[in-house]
Amino acid sequence: MISKLMEKIADRKAPVVVGLDPNLKFISAHLLKKAVSEKGETLEAAAEAILAFNKAIIDATYDLIPAVKPQIAMYEQFGIPGIIAYKETVDYCHEKGLIVIGDVKRGDIGSTSEAYATAHLGEVKIGDKSIRPFDEDMATVNPYLGTDGVKPFVDVCNKWDKGIFVLVKTSNPSSGEFQDQLIENSGSRPLYELVADKVREWGEASMDGAYSNVGAVVGATYPEQGERVRKLMPNACILVPGYGAQGGKASDLKAFFNKDGLGAIVNSSRGIIAAYTKEPYSERFDGEHFADASREAVRDMIEDINSCLI
Amino acid sequence: MISKLMEKIADRKAPVVVGLDPNLKFISAHLLKKAVSEKGETLEAAAEAILAFNKAIIDATYDLIPAVKPQIAMYEQFGIPGIIAYKETVDYCHEKGLIVIGDVKRGDIGSTSEAYATAHLGEVKIGDKSIRPFDEDMATVNPYLGTDGVKPFVDVCNKWDKGIFVLVKTSNPSSGEFQDQLIENSGSRPLYELVADKVREWGEASMDGAYSNVGAVVGATYPEQGERVRKLMPNACILVPGYGAQGGKASDLKAFFNKDGLGAIVNSSRGIIAAYTKEPYSERFDGEHFADASREAVRDMIEDINSCLI
Repeated sequence: MISKLMEKIADRKAPVVVGLDPNLKFISAHLLKKAVSEKGETLEAAAEAILAFNKAIIDATYDLIPAVKPQIAMYEQFGIPGIIAYKETVDYCHEKGLIVIGDVKRGDIGSTSEAYATAHLGEVKIGDKSIRPFDEDMATVNPYLGTDGVKPFVDVCNKWDKGIFVLVKTSNPSSGEFQDQLIENSGSRPLYELVADKVREWGEASMDGAYSNVGAVVGATYPEQGERVRKLMPNACILVPGYGAQGGKASDLKAFFNKDGLGAIVNSSRGIIAAYTKEPYSERFDGEHFADASREAVRDMIEDINSCLI
Repeated sequence: MISKLMEKIADRKAPVVVGLDPNLKFISAHLLKKAVSEKGETLEAAAEAILAFNKAIIDATYDLIPAVKPQIAMYEQFGIPGIIAYKETVDYCHEKGLIVIGDVKRGDIGSTSEAYATAHLGEVKIGDKSIRPFDEDMATVNPYLGTDGVKPFVDVCNKWDKGIFVLVKTSNPSSGEFQDQLIENSGSRPLYELVADKVREWGEASMDGAYSNVGAVVGATYPEQGERVRKLMPNACILVPGYGAQGGKASDLKAFFNKDGLGAIVNSSRGIIAAYTKEPYSERFDGEHFADASREAVRDMIEDINSCLI
């Protein structure tokens, strides 16, 4: 799968991913109003508005980008109808030829991780029939439980040509609380570097071209740490959240890429999907034209990031 | 919420929780056959069989136990119909007066954890209406992202009288890979002890009687570590997985309880729900009577655990 992602990035000249993290406060008011007029103030109405919002953004951007990253929490908060909207978003993105990275951050003991891997990347067998439950192409994985919590995902990557991104150094302010702790008998290295070592090790079992199907998540907000783990995991694609709304700047991003200008993909969620609410787009686009604002924001993001790679 | 759980444990004289982790290989064959004959080899059939299986086990055990712990991964692997069966299981357990611990192991950056906390423990607002999406009573939480990934859950606990269990030292074989790493400048303490310190700190903001709504997960398979963190978090209820099928023994469990015999709740999943497939129950119960076997296994588990607390 990672080779497909790399090809699409090269084809679009766009190492970017759009985070489809719909929050009712970003969703254009007319969409929610329409859904509520049809379905009342219900989870179903929220789900309908989310799906309409997502589809418009996908329609306006799919030719510019290689991949999207729906954050499942934003759908889970609307219960079953929300999860249905998540699945419909995944399917719609596939129709448009996009690679879908399910930002699910799952991880558990072995047998349970196996079920999560099946849910999101694999096939479940019922009698003689095999069914793909959610069918994302890639997923994010939490490493806190160690190898036996991650290996079932790697096995599924190998079996079904899928990919994962393991959390190494997350973008949030308190990520250092545990991730930056210095480990004894390791030469004073922080925990996230030990996780990066494991990502390299896990990834050796799932190479797909120059990169591995086992990638890593490292926040744009921590460029120095990004530079260090880039060297520790030369074959891992780094998924970089935290650009834009969370404070990461394009000038910080070079560290996450290999010298060939590949090996990383930068996510923006609010910066793209809520562009119509923010400067400079809000001057030119109103809530009815949110998707056009998103297209402009994607173009600007691609230009901004490519400028740092020259 | 934790005070309600403690009351129920005292009332039932049973510091145990039944893990509702249905796997098609545990589900009695006649249930799946019936569902497939009605709905074909579909996710809907699997979900129907799971729900029928769960309901029978709940009916057979609810008067003996304070709480259940459905593992959402086992439902997620059956896609949308699986998630619907999860929600119906939560609701059915509530009808029977059980406390429901959603074993969801969610955790993300602040704004995303807020969405997860809303999904599982809180209320989402759509227009003027507030709706509880999944409405478990408690949930498990992954601490890898630090305070700002956990705090939204604590806030929701305070707002809606709910509880969480934060992963401290998990039951799986490779849990030590990161969790046992010794931290510099901490007096050579392992990472999981630093997490335990934080659980105590987070928990101070959500006390509810003698215990805090912020509890911890520590595996029965690691009794020495359980003894250490028991002292570090005197007000945290410890949810103890790994008893039975994963190898944890009752004699190991004393360490997880406070001197008053309270402060821990022990989970068994396969040992209860698949009892009819295992000695000694398989001699007396066949697949048609799986729920009776579960009731016997619950009685035996309660006796076994209480024997270690004398």
